[in-house]
Amino acid sequence: MEKWRAADRLLKFSSRFASGTKLTCTIINYDHTHPLVSECCFFPIPFYCCKSKQGKYFYSVATTVHRNPLFSIISPDDISYFKTLLGERGVVQDALALDAANTDWMGKYRGSSKLLLQPKNTEEVSQILKYCNSRCLAVVPQGGNTGLVGGSVPVFDEVIINVGLMRNILSFDKVIVSGVLVCEAGCILENLISFLDDEGFIMPLDLGAKGSCQIGGNVSTNAGGLRLLRYGSLHGSVLGLEAVLANGTVLDMLGTLRKDNTGYDLKHLFIGSEGSLGIVTKVSILTPPKLSSVNIAFLACEDYTSCQKLLLEAKKKLGGILSAFEFLDSDAMSLVSSTTFLGTENHGQEVIKDKHGQDFTSIDLRALPLEFWYSYASGSIFMENLEAFLLHSVESGLVANGVLAQDINQASSFWHIREGLPEALMKAGAVYKYDLSLPLEKMYDLVEEMRVQIGPAAKVVAYGHLGDGNLHLNISAPAYDDNILAKIEPFVYEWTSKNRGSISAEHGLGLMKAAKIHYSKSPETVQVMASIKKLLDPNGILNPYKVLPSSLLSQN
Amino acid sequence: MEKWRAADRLLKFSSRFASGTKLTCTIINYDHTHPLVSECCFFPIPFYCCKSKQGKYFYSVATTVHRNPLFSIISPDDISYFKTLLGERGVVQDALALDAANTDWMGKYRGSSKLLLQPKNTEEVSQILKYCNSRCLAVVPQGGNTGLVGGSVPVFDEVIINVGLMRNILSFDKVIVSGVLVCEAGCILENLISFLDDEGFIMPLDLGAKGSCQIGGNVSTNAGGLRLLRYGSLHGSVLGLEAVLANGTVLDMLGTLRKDNTGYDLKHLFIGSEGSLGIVTKVSILTPPKLSSVNIAFLACEDYTSCQKLLLEAKKKLGGILSAFEFLDSDAMSLVSSTTFLGTENHGQEVIKDKHGQDFTSIDLRALPLEFWYSYASGSIFMENLEAFLLHSVESGLVANGVLAQDINQASSFWHIREGLPEALMKAGAVYKYDLSLPLEKMYDLVEEMRVQIGPAAKVVAYGHLGDGNLHLNISAPAYDDNILAKIEPFVYEWTSKNRGSISAEHGLGLMKAAKIHYSKSPETVQVMASIKKLLDPNGILNPYKVLPSSLLSQN
Repeated sequence: MEKWRAADRLLKFSSRFASGTKLTCTIINYDHTHPLVSECCFFPIPFYCCKSKQGKYFYSVATTVHRNPLFSIISPDDISYFKTLLGERGVVQDALALDAANTDWMGKYRGSSKLLLQPKNTEEVSQILKYCNSRCLAVVPQGGNTGLVGGSVPVFDEVIINVGLMRNILSFDKVIVSGVLVCEAGCILENLISFLDDEGFIMPLDLGAKGSCQIGGNVSTNAGGLRLLRYGSLHGSVLGLEAVLANGTVLDMLGTLRKDNTGYDLKHLFIGSEGSLGIVTKVSILTPPKLSSVNIAFLACEDYTSCQKLLLEAKKKLGGILSAFEFLDSDAMSLVSSTTFLGTENHGQEVIKDKHGQDFTSIDLRALPLEFWYSYASGSIFMENLEAFLLHSVESGLVANGVLAQDINQASSFWHIREGLPEALMKAGAVYKYDLSLPLEKMYDLVEEMRVQIGPAAKVVAYGHLGDGNLHLNISAPAYDDNILAKIEPFVYEWTSKNRGSISAEHGLGLMKAAKIHYSKSPETVQVMASIKKLLDPNGILNPYKVLPSSLLSQN
Repeated sequence: MEKWRAADRLLKFSSRFASGTKLTCTIINYDHTHPLVSECCFFPIPFYCCKSKQGKYFYSVATTVHRNPLFSIISPDDISYFKTLLGERGVVQDALALDAANTDWMGKYRGSSKLLLQPKNTEEVSQILKYCNSRCLAVVPQGGNTGLVGGSVPVFDEVIINVGLMRNILSFDKVIVSGVLVCEAGCILENLISFLDDEGFIMPLDLGAKGSCQIGGNVSTNAGGLRLLRYGSLHGSVLGLEAVLANGTVLDMLGTLRKDNTGYDLKHLFIGSEGSLGIVTKVSILTPPKLSSVNIAFLACEDYTSCQKLLLEAKKKLGGILSAFEFLDSDAMSLVSSTTFLGTENHGQEVIKDKHGQDFTSIDLRALPLEFWYSYASGSIFMENLEAFLLHSVESGLVANGVLAQDINQASSFWHIREGLPEALMKAGAVYKYDLSLPLEKMYDLVEEMRVQIGPAAKVVAYGHLGDGNLHLNISAPAYDDNILAKIEPFVYEWTSKNRGSISAEHGLGLMKAAKIHYSKSPETVQVMASIKKLLDPNGILNPYKVLPSSLLSQN
């Protein structure tokens, strides 16, 4: 019992982390000043992480971007206009609030906007954009500001349009059967999850950042998350949306139908375009009924090939009720075991018990060459099938060892091992993070080649959404080092490109990778993207410097 | 045994029909002549159906469309160019072959093209389009020519580009786990299904027309089909594609990744654009593993509300393993029972036996006020769960009666009842067909209102994909009658529009509904569609007169 209480404390801590709340111990110090309208912005901005006392210095590739001189600088008349339109409360100029809105949640990117607008409805968004477009004022749409690629904060002095006040649930067909939720873009994901839980439904999307991120931002970045394996991407579950174009035109595509073959399905342009084609203001989303229970197993395999085979077997034998299939390798497991989450308080195996209540502390997952874990969701009526499947997998040698959660607390503790990884990496030192999609059979080759490439100077830690072919590749070093970086980039992008992977599986391109789009997209495709950007946003005011290389957009 | 042999004959017949093969008894007589380049084309072309001996005369709303005078007329030099490019065999001018390619499979639309091109690869498609664009020669992309809205045949003298020779399967990862099939656009759906069956996988798409339709056409029309409920639309399962733009540019978007957030996901523009933005030449598609068995039940409910409730219960209790949920109402059941399929040879109930081999002939489904049927797919390990669910549904009163197929033959016979409906309607007389998406709770209201609207002059027959909110509304009359038509249209479109439905759930707009797009899309959205069409196809050569109103495209 004592053990469980201790575990509870841990879970609460990790739960806060998982909800996207910034760690209270984080101290961010910038070593650059940022004038309101500088001509050149260095990014990503070097910053000191939560271990700043040790003077660790984190940043990625140094790149420069120039402010587009065609954009106007905000004037007192502009402020007056916005105050008339939105009222005093909708026009934020307070330094503290602006500082938060200018900085991304990892403290990696920072803009210098002096104006944050908070529209309360679509009409106000439309009026704001119409005005900004006529004045050539650049804007950055912002939701919960939990993005990881610098997409949701200004680069220079762009006007921030935060849709957080647009947080109404507009309809939910709880009486009838289709489970379609229609809501405004500013609804926080966790609030939607809670709302649906009461109605007996679930969101097809779940993220670590759910406590802060908003559905409009999720849609705009085409967020992947933990349930993609079962419920597919937002391109499948978003039934409709409303978006406002740069010139203020409102596109009502807020259908609630599963099937609609009447012309080009334009909503897909806005899903994943990171606010660069329009601001999503309302969303209609198909939500699946809540299942009567969720089962999760944490299993160990001898090697990556066994992981792959197990995934196929699980897909075949468990069919559509498999909701997630994650993995972490032995270095990831060692790392997470050595941190507070599992190591210091040593609850890694202690919280794991078998169905008869016996401890599973005898299972040392770390002793195996490769570990992964595997989540399984189903109605309780399927528990027998799961057990049969696991038994067969152990007998056939695919699974070397493992445990099956017996209740929701155990299930949560398994998830928190996975969710504790980013935190564990932050604590271990400097970390270079890459979010890659790769063909499954190639995925772990990159990890092994990277280890050879890097040598003993840094540790390569791999985990991710195996079921979706999404690898989170982390290179963990004692401190930032240009020599290490030179071994990682462009190697990692070139390797990914050569194997027809994606340099951004679920985080988007944002500011971080806008200039690297060619690694994942053909020149012709990028050219058509740029044409569409210019068609829908001729002045380029929407989220400039992001998604596409600026050089392409200035071409005539 | 004798009964089963008779049933077999029936099934073979309906199988041919389901595969999109034209009925051999069909005689098509046109009462209009069609000069090669007429200035005005009447459509849909009146035609005599398979009961032409009785002189029945079928057509829908008479509409006219004018040939775009900017398009060139094909010259001997053009023919020479294409022969040099494709060889003699790739340039078809034979009257019989052209007649087939000019006519849609229902014999409802007919063009007057004198040239059919058959490219063998993407490069040839690119060269053809580059040439046609420079010469301003209009083209119509064609796959299996099984579309239902006149999208795949010329309206006037457009050059037909048939991709049927591009039918290679390029890769399938049978050794590894992801189940990604990459193939050329001309692959026939049924061939892909067979190929995957051997590999232990299935296509996420299944259609009645699978014996003729091609995957490129399926993708271009965003075909829905029988498995959408479980596997979602092609927007979800198509991982990538290659398309050729009007100017010959090849867009390589042939990714095989589940997740890729690197910029605008342009492939979605080509899914469902009916060849009006580009010609799809290759497709990459995620295929689910084959399940060990498929179970199907044919159930009867007292009313439509019970049908809806049962769908919700099935979604909740059976989760992701529910693959289809179809319905047909009592008028549909009466109709199909009175035709050859069920009536004359009377196998409707005879083929249905319970699990102990007892006849179910005592169940008279027609005696119930409303019937629907319901298909359920699962691994065999779930059979007990299905039986438990059905038992509970009967006890709770949701299901009034029903049968569960005990083997693949019985399962097929259930499907053939559903697939026999279009045939039964054709035999019953003139039929006005509407393919609508509607909010589930409203769907049957339209059927009932239509019955009041029409009165005794015609019979309203409803069936469709209840699980997807897709209603196939049929008004069956002894013969075509303007008075009846006037009661149907624009009522049916206005009603659908008022209830935020879609006037085309799965068939597309094609030629039939291009001018009716405003019933389902806002003017601003249609305007953006037209802008994108003009951006990607400035000369408008790709599948002209389809999808969008011509008036919009000629605007500057």
